[in-house]
Amino acid sequence: MSTNHKTPAVTDARLARARHLLVDLDGTLVRQQEAIAGAAELLKHFEGRYAIVSNNSTHTAPGLAQRLRRLGLRVPAERIVLAGELAVRQLVSEQPGARVMMVASPALQRYARSLGCDLVQSGADFVLLALDMQFSHARLALAVNELLRGAQLVASNADATHPGPHGRVVPETGALLAAVVAASGVRPLRVTGKPAPLLFEEGLRCLGARAEDTVVVGDNPLTDAEGAGRLGMACVLVGQAPGAVAPSVAGLFASSGPAQPVEETAQYRLSESTSKVWRSVRTEVS
Amino acid sequence: MSTNHKTPAVTDARLARARHLLVDLDGTLVRQQEAIAGAAELLKHFEGRYAIVSNNSTHTAPGLAQRLRRLGLRVPAERIVLAGELAVRQLVSEQPGARVMMVASPALQRYARSLGCDLVQSGADFVLLALDMQFSHARLALAVNELLRGAQLVASNADATHPGPHGRVVPETGALLAAVVAASGVRPLRVTGKPAPLLFEEGLRCLGARAEDTVVVGDNPLTDAEGAGRLGMACVLVGQAPGAVAPSVAGLFASSGPAQPVEETAQYRLSESTSKVWRSVRTEVS
Repeated sequence: MSTNHKTPAVTDARLARARHLLVDLDGTLVRQQEAIAGAAELLKHFEGRYAIVSNNSTHTAPGLAQRLRRLGLRVPAERIVLAGELAVRQLVSEQPGARVMMVASPALQRYARSLGCDLVQSGADFVLLALDMQFSHARLALAVNELLRGAQLVASNADATHPGPHGRVVPETGALLAAVVAASGVRPLRVTGKPAPLLFEEGLRCLGARAEDTVVVGDNPLTDAEGAGRLGMACVLVGQAPGAVAPSVAGLFASSGPAQPVEETAQYRLSESTSKVWRSVRTEVS
Repeated sequence: MSTNHKTPAVTDARLARARHLLVDLDGTLVRQQEAIAGAAELLKHFEGRYAIVSNNSTHTAPGLAQRLRRLGLRVPAERIVLAGELAVRQLVSEQPGARVMMVASPALQRYARSLGCDLVQSGADFVLLALDMQFSHARLALAVNELLRGAQLVASNADATHPGPHGRVVPETGALLAAVVAASGVRPLRVTGKPAPLLFEEGLRCLGARAEDTVVVGDNPLTDAEGAGRLGMACVLVGQAPGAVAPSVAGLFASSGPAQPVEETAQYRLSESTSKVWRSVRTEVS
């Protein structure tokens, strides 16, 4: 057993050459209530040279930084780029004064208000859909009828699930979006999250990094790898995806102990199959 | 103005020849909290010779009979065939002893229990999805994780919406199904409702009627007309659908007063566009 407290060496050649890192969050660094093996090592190794780039749409960057700290991961808030926040900023800057119905977490709604966004329950110009753990039939009905009345639909992200605790999945914005689209017949004008380039571009900007010196680390071929590829960035996949180099980020280091047991693959297979449903939307909006 | 209290004459030739009627409910006879013009006349004209055949999955037949009575429509409960009840009866008779997670109205759950159905919150063999006005992210998560664990999915119906009051739509089972399918990747084994033939067959049985003597009256080409056609029955459409003979059932009678104003068409267009999403599923299961 090693007593070396230094960060162990990176084994992947692409990572070893990378100047900067854009790192996915759910399924790569954390799984709901826990940090994934190797997450702290990866962030330590690339300290000051990484940004977290996530389709998360419930948290704000400061709130997420706090949550990560509780899981033992110290990440500066200004190095966290989130699809939910970015969707709000995008809408506020492009459509100042627009009336917006948000189906979203309380944190994201507070964030929108802090940017001067005019949040309404009726007569909306836009319906902004993000992951809403209080999603209900009543909220679905409100949103759908606003869309039928003429409001336009924007969504933070199109992931159908993210990995939850105990091998379970958590339904994501994409699942809610499926219900909204089915009932309204209205397709989203834009989906902000990966694989669209905006999130990665924001990550590069906040690092002052260039795509050619930057590697994406993630667990989803259809968001992380595809998004990276569109900007010409290399992508190192972990998890159960085809082409993944290790079952978790711990496997990216030389001396990280015994190999991780291979986890159940349902979560990944799910992400892949359900992502396909939205692939056309994502492609349209990218 | 006529002072004649007799039921006015039917003008549609198919209706005039019909021995029996299978009548759709939402959008044809009622719109949430009100009876549609001409509904009482139609039922009176065909008294003892009609059954209501509806994709409704929240009510039971006795509960619905009571609701209709409040709207001025006296319909015997035994002449009401509902997709939700039928889905439950089908499952209980084909899979006696199965463990069933229901995402459905309290009334439909009570009905299932009354038939001896073993309702569970985990370890389900089947997830039975119907319209659940208490649908929430938490219920979605429960159902999706049961499906990923191996439970099979059955659905009462696949309508994405039904007409609500004040020109609004009410999201239906099909919209919830879209979310469940997106997040689980699991497609329903069976969808009981129209246009699958089961509901119409049950209607014919309870009337002792033959398809060739029976006419379907409805407002949706993709459920009512398509389902009727599969069994060789004629279908008279009302509402805004292409091919509709009148904007409401009132238009089926000679002396029903001035023509109804043409209503907004969004509800129908919606039903059509969203029904398409599920057309393949319906076709598979029919």
